[in-house]
Amino acid sequence: MQTVEYDPEGPLIHMIDQRQLPGNLEILALRDLEQVIHAIREMAVRGAPAIGISAAFGLALSGRVSTISTIQAWKIAIEEAAARLLKTRPTAINLRWAVDQVLSFVDSFNTDDIEFARSQLDTLVQTMADNDVENNRRMARVGSELISDKATVIHHCNTGALAAVDYGTALGVIRYAHEAGKQVHVLVDETRPRLQGSRLTAWELDRYGISYDIITDGAAGYFLQTGEISAVLVGADRVAANGDVANKIGTYMLALAAQASSVPFYCVAPRSTFDMQTAAGMDIPIEERSPDEVLSIQLNGAEVVPNGASARNPAFDITPFFLVTAFITEHGLLYPPYLDSLQAMHEKSDI
Amino acid sequence: MQTVEYDPEGPLIHMIDQRQLPGNLEILALRDLEQVIHAIREMAVRGAPAIGISAAFGLALSGRVSTISTIQAWKIAIEEAAARLLKTRPTAINLRWAVDQVLSFVDSFNTDDIEFARSQLDTLVQTMADNDVENNRRMARVGSELISDKATVIHHCNTGALAAVDYGTALGVIRYAHEAGKQVHVLVDETRPRLQGSRLTAWELDRYGISYDIITDGAAGYFLQTGEISAVLVGADRVAANGDVANKIGTYMLALAAQASSVPFYCVAPRSTFDMQTAAGMDIPIEERSPDEVLSIQLNGAEVVPNGASARNPAFDITPFFLVTAFITEHGLLYPPYLDSLQAMHEKSDI
Repeated sequence: MQTVEYDPEGPLIHMIDQRQLPGNLEILALRDLEQVIHAIREMAVRGAPAIGISAAFGLALSGRVSTISTIQAWKIAIEEAAARLLKTRPTAINLRWAVDQVLSFVDSFNTDDIEFARSQLDTLVQTMADNDVENNRRMARVGSELISDKATVIHHCNTGALAAVDYGTALGVIRYAHEAGKQVHVLVDETRPRLQGSRLTAWELDRYGISYDIITDGAAGYFLQTGEISAVLVGADRVAANGDVANKIGTYMLALAAQASSVPFYCVAPRSTFDMQTAAGMDIPIEERSPDEVLSIQLNGAEVVPNGASARNPAFDITPFFLVTAFITEHGLLYPPYLDSLQAMHEKSDI
Repeated sequence: MQTVEYDPEGPLIHMIDQRQLPGNLEILALRDLEQVIHAIREMAVRGAPAIGISAAFGLALSGRVSTISTIQAWKIAIEEAAARLLKTRPTAINLRWAVDQVLSFVDSFNTDDIEFARSQLDTLVQTMADNDVENNRRMARVGSELISDKATVIHHCNTGALAAVDYGTALGVIRYAHEAGKQVHVLVDETRPRLQGSRLTAWELDRYGISYDIITDGAAGYFLQTGEISAVLVGADRVAANGDVANKIGTYMLALAAQASSVPFYCVAPRSTFDMQTAAGMDIPIEERSPDEVLSIQLNGAEVVPNGASARNPAFDITPFFLVTAFITEHGLLYPPYLDSLQAMHEKSDI
């Protein structure tokens, strides 16, 4: 089972409901655009690459279920669906990247045969999904060279198979090193408020047989100070042209602590996460989610915040480029100066 | 009601059970040394100054309830009780400071009258408690000068009335500024794993009518980057002679983020928290508590970690002296170089 799968025959999208993990492995069956939008917004699916492919699948699905009879109206319906999908989550750029891929493909159709167009679109989105998995494996191979045997690494949020179509980005690197026979121990940042580390990364590591300990986000600095950490690995929701990284809240403080202890800080992200249209991190919109995510927490079953307590809940932060040791991409490792190395990758890759 | 109160007539110690907050304001009645030891170890009482005074009260209580008839045996019983109290929590130095105060006082007794000795000891520990409150108010007054009107500050863990006998250390500074008519908004680090921020600091701020928002520990860096934070305020569990600070886990990463945004980082601590016998932070023992504190968390009532998940749980970390802008003490502000300014305070203060 992949995190998200598209079946044109249904037509429907199968998706692991990540809100139910680790307690229940529940598979959602999404049958129209509304359900896909809801799944993305409510974070049944999360992780930048997984969101992107889910949106692409959603467009193909909406193209399948529409009863429109002219190709022109069909194209307009796809564009309208795309506009709605783009509004679900503002920070991760993979969503826009995937939607743009679909729109530019659809725009190029020179046919009056809607059924043919649907079938072409199905093929495109499946290819995008397959490429995502292939790119993850490439990144993992590239990145695993940086992981030594008996390494202990710190990992933030979830960047595993669940965050992509399959295999994962930063967690993919760890997984590849493990599969190559290296002994790796992972300190898993629990990643408040939604606890993607405790809930999802620990669950994946259990399945892969990789040893780990969950730590609170505030404890990462303590462990970095011990000198026993080989590397910090994170994914990204968007990388600006200068190398600034938008990623899950807490990433920035982790990067500061890595730098303070001279521990390499690697950002693992596919080409589709790099946004050359955004000059720097300050231009990236940061989603602020409901205070309830911070407040709806219990310890041993007891409520822990006073009645009526208020909270702020930015979902992402910006890690400045100068804290990033290298980017691990499917096109290889990118080192500073990032204005040059990111531009070079952008020009080389024909997407 | 103070956090902890001693009644020689009982004899008993009244103590707010901080594990029950904010849901229930439950007052424990401790009637022997065993109960005091249990309360400290299980964190019914926490906060360095509160632990210190609780231990002193515990010694006076054990001196009261003992049925020993010779002063020599009574002194030995107090020493044995002291040795047991010292083992409850290793990091906070106030515990040792308070126990040492009592032992040196008891050692100086030149009487055969046990009842007189008991009464003298009762007076000593009550004086220590009163001094703690008085010192907190002095620190608060000194520190409040550093808080401007309309300031937003970040605060970690709980350093309020609950962490001391009354009033508080870092939170005392905020409270004093508020009482002086300044408008202060507090971003309250929730402080995983035990959530002293969400549970205790938010509860206190509600009672004082001070506005706040709870944030996850990993979000502090994001807010510091906005330029809207005037200061970061923390307490301390022990300060080494060079100015290194042992404090609640997460403090170090917060200090790094404050420095990266050029926001002042103030450590508020009474003289009794400074340990001139410990040269540097690396010499301070860091308590590692049960993994259950990390793992026993629920979101909206659902378990969030896989069955059998493992965790690491250091309760404190070390913030190096060079990240501390100033210490706020009852003897005034201490600035770098700390080897000099801490030594000067130590020589000036006759305790």
